[in-house]
Amino acid sequence: MEEAKGVVKHVVVAKFEDDVSPQKMVELIKGFANLVNLVPTMKSFHWGKHVSAENMNEGFTHVFESTFESTEGLAEYVAHPAHLQFANLFLSHADKLIAVDYKPTIVHL
Amino acid sequence: MEEAKGVVKHVVVAKFEDDVSPQKMVELIKGFANLVNLVPTMKSFHWGKHVSAENMNEGFTHVFESTFESTEGLAEYVAHPAHLQFANLFLSHADKLIAVDYKPTIVHL
Repeated sequence: MEEAKGVVKHVVVAKFEDDVSPQKMVELIKGFANLVNLVPTMKSFHWGKHVSAENMNEGFTHVFESTFESTEGLAEYVAHPAHLQFANLFLSHADKLIAVDYKPTIVHL
Repeated sequence: MEEAKGVVKHVVVAKFEDDVSPQKMVELIKGFANLVNLVPTMKSFHWGKHVSAENMNEGFTHVFESTFESTEGLAEYVAHPAHLQFANLFLSHADKLIAVDYKPTIVHL
């Protein structure tokens, strides 16, 4: 099972508080995306609403995926003032949130 | 906010039961990966162990990411006998599991 060359994905799965307006959601999503411009080690950002197929999402409604070149780069992001400031804002509007980090690995069968 | 051209990512975040051996984990991960060979609409599979940066993973330890060409393709996967059989096996070894599906979308700032 071969690890991808150092790339680390940071996946946030979240549900916003019920009182967060659609406009506020757009603002928060843009704020998240803008971290790419503020944190040099954050290389890309994608997001999407949960589109139901199975019913295994446990109430989570949004996915946010960022890519970093290395675990060191991810650690820099986590400690970066721009991230910390945004994370405080984002978390104040999140009903629940999970963040997991992994190196995408291919399985050779 | 522009949606990627139909691609759907299926992200499973899980924690195995404490009594699942490392060998059994490898077997389950290979079984998950092998669905690419059994379900035509499943286009790729990556996985990784959670590598801690923040402490926001709520006890989840593994990420599994599959890619589909469309929501229809994902729906075919969800209903496919090979997936259903594997999902039963996998869930019997999972302490907890969340599955979310999303179309990766880029934010134009």
